[in-house]
Amino acid sequence: MSSPEVIRAPEVIRAPEDFRARCERARRDGLRVGFVPTMGALHEGHLTLAREARRRVGEGGVVAVSIFVNPTQFGPHEDLARYPRELDADVGRCATAGVDVVFAPSVEAMYPPGDQTRVRVTKVSEPFCGPFRPGHFEGVATVVTRLFVLAGACDAVFGRKDYQQWRVLDRMARDLFLPVEVIGHPTVREADGLAMSSRNRYLSVEDRLRARVVPEALSAAVRAYEGGERDVATLRSIAQAILCERADKVEYADLREPVDLDELPNALAADGRAVLAVAVRIGATRLIDNVVLGEERAPRPS
Amino acid sequence: MSSPEVIRAPEVIRAPEDFRARCERARRDGLRVGFVPTMGALHEGHLTLAREARRRVGEGGVVAVSIFVNPTQFGPHEDLARYPRELDADVGRCATAGVDVVFAPSVEAMYPPGDQTRVRVTKVSEPFCGPFRPGHFEGVATVVTRLFVLAGACDAVFGRKDYQQWRVLDRMARDLFLPVEVIGHPTVREADGLAMSSRNRYLSVEDRLRARVVPEALSAAVRAYEGGERDVATLRSIAQAILCERADKVEYADLREPVDLDELPNALAADGRAVLAVAVRIGATRLIDNVVLGEERAPRPS
Repeated sequence: MSSPEVIRAPEVIRAPEDFRARCERARRDGLRVGFVPTMGALHEGHLTLAREARRRVGEGGVVAVSIFVNPTQFGPHEDLARYPRELDADVGRCATAGVDVVFAPSVEAMYPPGDQTRVRVTKVSEPFCGPFRPGHFEGVATVVTRLFVLAGACDAVFGRKDYQQWRVLDRMARDLFLPVEVIGHPTVREADGLAMSSRNRYLSVEDRLRARVVPEALSAAVRAYEGGERDVATLRSIAQAILCERADKVEYADLREPVDLDELPNALAADGRAVLAVAVRIGATRLIDNVVLGEERAPRPS
Repeated sequence: MSSPEVIRAPEVIRAPEDFRARCERARRDGLRVGFVPTMGALHEGHLTLAREARRRVGEGGVVAVSIFVNPTQFGPHEDLARYPRELDADVGRCATAGVDVVFAPSVEAMYPPGDQTRVRVTKVSEPFCGPFRPGHFEGVATVVTRLFVLAGACDAVFGRKDYQQWRVLDRMARDLFLPVEVIGHPTVREADGLAMSSRNRYLSVEDRLRARVVPEALSAAVRAYEGGERDVATLRSIAQAILCERADKVEYADLREPVDLDELPNALAADGRAVLAVAVRIGATRLIDNVVLGEERAPRPS
């Protein structure tokens, strides 16, 4: 029999300056800081990011998870009000993943009275979700700049399910000289291939089954690519046709160059890579997902 | 006879990461960092800011001056190309003011290839120079965010001649949690009251004499205020009428609340303060200046 694992509750910090001081203290003690910014409603995907942060900073390092439902990244008709908030349960989940610090500030603390500063990243915010969520990436860049300034030098781990967000934040950190290593960790998926997301809980049982169409569409494109298909329009059509079969709406299914999200030539090179990103509505729920052709395997088990 | 003063040349740093490391080393050694961001072409006003930084960080502290003609804060028809660049002379001037470090990065270093991140401060950027220099304060906020991130915790000293800039940057530093104390130091003036500015050298001899109209206009408003005048439109008219006599163009002469630059009621309270800011053209040269009514004395010696 193995001995029972000791699970220690993470330290919960509310005030931005306390979070800054905690991270500074860790570095002064010679420890590395791993940071996982989230909006809470944590699932196995988030916990995988926390474990990746631990792997990077080592057993002695400090792993911090921020939990903040950031109002500036929601549009006026989006799900800010009903986005799940469950701090106590999230702290418990963090404990099981060995998280040391949970930073859970209030909206008023992150956006003090009179706040009027905004950060935007131009080109890489424009394709994919850009036209469908105006202001979204500006809201993300604005709050993550603040979080990065507070955390200081750290390894920040994001999930690649939000592929464009990862690219926006990596660009932002470099451009602003923020001393942060921005890491995109591979998407964690359910057994049937659906990417884990806090929004999956919005799905009815029937819609949850229909949602499988998303990894199926990506997988079909991966298999076509592996079969030698390099025509960008054809690869896009393969994904789009499958999505249209069962999604209520296809916002986009588009291929782009994987780093800067630039447009691609009509045909990829033999070893050319491309990120295929999609957004659909299943019922009232918006789901996004992506796969990098030439780099990742099919997300749907065949 | 006093002994000759020893003047030591400042350390000149070109690479952003070297500047960051230099400031970090100072703090690790327990020293405070005083920082004066400039565009170079240094004059007595800048050197006064460097001496104020010294006063704040103490003899043992580190005073850094950055010299960077920031392209993103110039409009397409402004004087970016002809803005004076004279690094060697500036380093010499810094030596006389006891500056320890001159940070003089290249444009390519501050805006690396693919750069696309911009910072803006909304409301406080809108009045005064806002409509006349679209994008100007966004360029300033973008570069100073980068400079503040590199400098780290410090006292940053700006001249109040650029009053709106000071207010924009103070707001920005607070909103982004940048660990910087943003200080606005009183404007340094020539003997006849003209605010020191790197752009004064553009003035012909005749225009230099005409430029006295700017401090004269501000002083007339101060004297009216001191005489009991509290009507905002009247105070504005007093300044405007004088400027119109000799300036080639009055871009604006406006009064605002001094911190957030909000609009004012029609009449100030007896102890009410207001910043009167003006921008004029004398020949081809654009001059700005300001005074805080209820706080500062008349800038023009009477």
